[in-house]
Amino acid sequence: MKKINVSIVGASGYAGGELLRILLFHPHVNVLQVTSRTLAGQPVGVAHPNVRGITDLIFCLPQELKACDMLFISLPNTLSMQNMAGFGKIARKIIDLGADFRLNSQDAFAYWYKKEHSLPNLLSKFIYGLAELHRSEIKKAKYVACAGCEATVSILTLYPLLKHKLIEEDSIIIDAKMSSSQGGHVLTSASHHPERAGVVRSYKPVDHRHAGEIEQELSPFAKKIKVAVSATTIEMVRGLLVTIHTRPKKEISEKDVWKAYRSEYSKEPFIRIVKEATGNYRYPEPKILTGTNYCDIGFALSERENRLVAIGAIDNLGKGTAGQAVQAMNIMSGFPETAGLTFPGLHPI
Amino acid sequence: MKKINVSIVGASGYAGGELLRILLFHPHVNVLQVTSRTLAGQPVGVAHPNVRGITDLIFCLPQELKACDMLFISLPNTLSMQNMAGFGKIARKIIDLGADFRLNSQDAFAYWYKKEHSLPNLLSKFIYGLAELHRSEIKKAKYVACAGCEATVSILTLYPLLKHKLIEEDSIIIDAKMSSSQGGHVLTSASHHPERAGVVRSYKPVDHRHAGEIEQELSPFAKKIKVAVSATTIEMVRGLLVTIHTRPKKEISEKDVWKAYRSEYSKEPFIRIVKEATGNYRYPEPKILTGTNYCDIGFALSERENRLVAIGAIDNLGKGTAGQAVQAMNIMSGFPETAGLTFPGLHPI
Amino acid sequence: MKKINVSIVGASGYAGGELLRILLFHPHVNVLQVTSRTLAGQPVGVAHPNVRGITDLIFCLPQELKACDMLFISLPNTLSMQNMAGFGKIARKIIDLGADFRLNSQDAFAYWYKKEHSLPNLLSKFIYGLAELHRSEIKKAKYVACAGCEATVSILTLYPLLKHKLIEEDSIIIDAKMSSSQGGHVLTSASHHPERAGVVRSYKPVDHRHAGEIEQELSPFAKKIKVAVSATTIEMVRGLLVTIHTRPKKEISEKDVWKAYRSEYSKEPFIRIVKEATGNYRYPEPKILTGTNYCDIGFALSERENRLVAIGAIDNLGKGTAGQAVQAMNIMSGFPETAGLTFPGLHPI
Amino acid sequence: MKKINVSIVGASGYAGGELLRILLFHPHVNVLQVTSRTLAGQPVGVAHPNVRGITDLIFCLPQELKACDMLFISLPNTLSMQNMAGFGKIARKIIDLGADFRLNSQDAFAYWYKKEHSLPNLLSKFIYGLAELHRSEIKKAKYVACAGCEATVSILTLYPLLKHKLIEEDSIIIDAKMSSSQGGHVLTSASHHPERAGVVRSYKPVDHRHAGEIEQELSPFAKKIKVAVSATTIEMVRGLLVTIHTRPKKEISEKDVWKAYRSEYSKEPFIRIVKEATGNYRYPEPKILTGTNYCDIGFALSERENRLVAIGAIDNLGKGTAGQAVQAMNIMSGFPETAGLTFPGLHPI
Repeated sequence: MKKINVSIVGASGYAGGELLRILLFHPHVNVLQVTSRTLAGQPVGVAHPNVRGITDLIFCLPQELKACDMLFISLPNTLSMQNMAGFGKIARKIIDLGADFRLNSQDAFAYWYKKEHSLPNLLSKFIYGLAELHRSEIKKAKYVACAGCEATVSILTLYPLLKHKLIEEDSIIIDAKMSSSQGGHVLTSASHHPERAGVVRSYKPVDHRHAGEIEQELSPFAKKIKVAVSATTIEMVRGLLVTIHTRPKKEISEKDVWKAYRSEYSKEPFIRIVKEATGNYRYPEPKILTGTNYCDIGFALSERENRLVAIGAIDNLGKGTAGQAVQAMNIMSGFPETAGLTFPGLHPI
Repeated sequence: MKKINVSIVGASGYAGGELLRILLFHPHVNVLQVTSRTLAGQPVGVAHPNVRGITDLIFCLPQELKACDMLFISLPNTLSMQNMAGFGKIARKIIDLGADFRLNSQDAFAYWYKKEHSLPNLLSKFIYGLAELHRSEIKKAKYVACAGCEATVSILTLYPLLKHKLIEEDSIIIDAKMSSSQGGHVLTSASHHPERAGVVRSYKPVDHRHAGEIEQELSPFAKKIKVAVSATTIEMVRGLLVTIHTRPKKEISEKDVWKAYRSEYSKEPFIRIVKEATGNYRYPEPKILTGTNYCDIGFALSERENRLVAIGAIDNLGKGTAGQAVQAMNIMSGFPETAGLTFPGLHPI
Repeated sequence: MKKINVSIVGASGYAGGELLRILLFHPHVNVLQVTSRTLAGQPVGVAHPNVRGITDLIFCLPQELKACDMLFISLPNTLSMQNMAGFGKIARKIIDLGADFRLNSQDAFAYWYKKEHSLPNLLSKFIYGLAELHRSEIKKAKYVACAGCEATVSILTLYPLLKHKLIEEDSIIIDAKMSSSQGGHVLTSASHHPERAGVVRSYKPVDHRHAGEIEQELSPFAKKIKVAVSATTIEMVRGLLVTIHTRPKKEISEKDVWKAYRSEYSKEPFIRIVKEATGNYRYPEPKILTGTNYCDIGFALSERENRLVAIGAIDNLGKGTAGQAVQAMNIMSGFPETAGLTFPGLHPI
Repeated sequence: MKKINVSIVGASGYAGGELLRILLFHPHVNVLQVTSRTLAGQPVGVAHPNVRGITDLIFCLPQELKACDMLFISLPNTLSMQNMAGFGKIARKIIDLGADFRLNSQDAFAYWYKKEHSLPNLLSKFIYGLAELHRSEIKKAKYVACAGCEATVSILTLYPLLKHKLIEEDSIIIDAKMSSSQGGHVLTSASHHPERAGVVRSYKPVDHRHAGEIEQELSPFAKKIKVAVSATTIEMVRGLLVTIHTRPKKEISEKDVWKAYRSEYSKEPFIRIVKEATGNYRYPEPKILTGTNYCDIGFALSERENRLVAIGAIDNLGKGTAGQAVQAMNIMSGFPETAGLTFPGLHPI
């Protein structure tokens, strides 16, 4: 199979770095260029010490980008839409890892991001990057917008339950446990190690903006969908777990839930249902997903509480960002969907 | 003030050790004896390296206990009720840190602990140890049963909201983030460091037994109270945070919540309302409560989500167990309520 | 006993904050003022969330300082000497927690800090703050300069061995394991949580400047003293352990080492010799010293290796800085030496 | 290239599990059988949750082993030599990950392991598994004994310095910072999370048995070699760093050290020299080596201290055990030496 040339805009951040790591070992890809305004001229190992001695790539400036087959954009919010016109000239196919093109509607964007979208016409051209929901569209897409990490794991954990009418639509609470890499590589006093280490910090107890994406993607399965997200950051560099509290429709059983998940996911290469009766790893855990593209999903049902708790785990930089982007690229390019994404994760870690 | 003589049964565990630490520095207490079946004859520093060189106490066997003014019991579940007859002869006043006498009803005990209570008649004699709810009863009590740690922080965070009719009674979800010391000092494969480090582990997603205590204590304020507890263990040795998802009654404002908490807690020495507009520590965080008897409480209200998220943090071994016990002892003994409990916590930590 | 009035210059940092915590609960002290240029006008809880609700103190500007009995200075290097003239007018007694006045000689300062000292005449007026070595001088001192944290634990671990002629003077290697709070509260990319968490980072493998202090203080016991310090930062917010590799003089035994330590330290309130045959805490460990003023010391002797490994542990912000300062204040003021410093540390933590 | 059949004896431990992970994705290997006495009959995912859903392998009993091309042994000390006769009938080629056959001499084994070797004649038949030192022998070997993890990184860091006569032979001190996975998967009270988390624990301050291996392997380069190892366990699940304190021969320069390392390692696929003037990752760090087969090496030279500090980092389960074993297998089998070992590590992590 002929290799395609890809470049990464904004490759000095964590998402860009993880993308670079995966692509450097992808069997069908040649990484052509990687940009960083601040590190242009320096080897990529300066930002990503894990690839020192593995690649000779040097960061370049965005204006030095040459034409390529696929362009990945990994920029802070709003920078992607500001520069999209130029990016469109570099590559016919674009995968955006940021938030600018995830929402389909101008109004939703204005509501959640508190500013007007500068390219509203493009919103409908971007396909939401979750293969499990949009595989056939991604296959034909020119432009893909990868889902946010909380959105990724929440949507994947919830949609089979809604599609199969197992839970009420209006009482969904997503309690997310977050890692420090989700805050990116820009220093803040909250990320200073003595302040950040060991915290259980209510980062965004209400009104988390990923709710917008989640409701958008779940709405085909639930007309009156309403989700609430509470995000708590904990001692973890990488990884994300959601404990999703839902109210089941009456008289559903564990079997029904198994059936729903299996019917949606039995053929999905990156979704595993994890629910064991014994052992330490009875439910999904992000730690063993570090570096992988897996989304592990589990659940527990309580009759007493009239509650179905669904649990999802991912690596926020894997399936939550860079892995998802590569999966989309594989689909768009006709590569095997798991190409470059077979790392199984480590244990212990 | 004359010092009282106290002894601790089961002093080799984590709760017993923390209790010992506090009592050794308590101005009105003399620690007479501490028992441990497995470590009898050895200095307490063998189990609690923090008090090496600070005390000459030697663990003794339970049968060696002499009469004292106050007896603390810190035993695994069911051992306290099995031995209570004997303990009653040692001391006129008893504070039990375990679960055996927290529930008021024989049926509730049987439901949550899956066995019959062996001393049902004693259940009504034990006062639930939360000073904030039962101060006047504790003052006159002979017997006190300290609350479980999840129950402690959940009840303290919730009861003003219920008492002031700010939230619905039937939709309370307590998402607890737990530490490894809550599992006690007995080895399990789940507590083996390479398996336990860095986890976000759904320890008890539904049907957590502390729900029983919580409902019991909140029922005076809400007839149809129903709580669901989900417990996730994270990377933390000590500390406990609950994110409590509730549905507010209509048109309540942040001011109403402030008012409810202030009206209940403005004179409480160990409750602080933490809700800041800026800074890293805007909401309660367990890390800075390590070693203290504080319960920090905060909240966030969302109109869009029709949700009031209440957040409570404690040190599970402090206010959640040993600190609570000492606070009760202070009240029972006519000591200043904060005696021995003034440690403010550390920062950074 | 009448309380003295003390103020802290530079109270928004970690050392200043820990000092404040101790002093707020000190039985013989009234904290008059605390300064911070950046936080002047704000409550101290903004910087130190552990004292929220415990004190009403507000940060003031240095120029607002009133006369007091004792002034503590906790400023970045060189700022103390630049402002010492003014500080001398505020208080007759000064304790400096920084590095400016630790070295006795102008040349040594220039060598280690790569700049000229601006107040060389004052160098001899400052007593080095280790009570164990300079108690009688501190008693009469107007000015005290607290030891650096690596220096504190290294000197305390080494001097009995040198004084009792148990080790060679010219082959002392101090391998220090450091915590993130030693880097202070100023953000750096190295302290960004995702970069700092879980590291074993060779921060200063050679030529660590605390060697200057250590050699100065050990030289009375060893004419040709020469120490080499290697500092590695590890996953720890607070705490410091030194593994000191030394070559024993011939035919010394463990008993000799015990004797040396006991003869120097048997009456010291904050030094413990920790060397157990069994258990998990056989040697000193910083974790259980968090928040305390202890220095725990242990050792191991190998005939095969012709090596005596001495091990010392402290809390870098306790005995390593703020605790040491309070101990010096107690001595200077005629208070009981342990006043305010009795916190025994926590277990587990 | 035809795949070879390999089996793993003792595959339920951490080394066996990491080996399994690598081999499952090795392009030239088919994993035939994996044994575990305690878990026989159960899927491997029970012990290694990272490979759940990735393989259908079931643990079998050792006695069920079929003939294969290569047998890996990952057993507790002494079990390998007790069963070697039987293993020799299963496969013509054997790679032992344990300690039984690392030492060449019966006497050395008795000295370090305090027992007689039961198969002394076999000792000389096992080649020490470090490809960097024994590549040509490994190529022809039937039996390989992988190096201990501390020995691996210490030998690789030291031998170029000794071979090129840059350091004194008699004053080598290896200060090792260890992770919890080095203790294996068997529960101990020292590995209980509340006791183990956050420690800086002097595990083996003197007389570490890996000194035996290290001296054996370095003796060809230094007749009077003498090394002392001090091992401190820290908060880390996986990874190992050695800070090696050495005395340089006179007037060596940094260039000499660079030259020595380059002349030995410029063609080695898994050794990188890491010494940067700026950035956070200036020296080797184990964290970014997690899951890899790299050994990163750096150094610092001090004229003042007359000291050369050499620093080495590995993943103890990677290059330190399982990765090393696979590298040896690749060489023995004529596969590309990096086959199956190209994972570059993650950042951040």
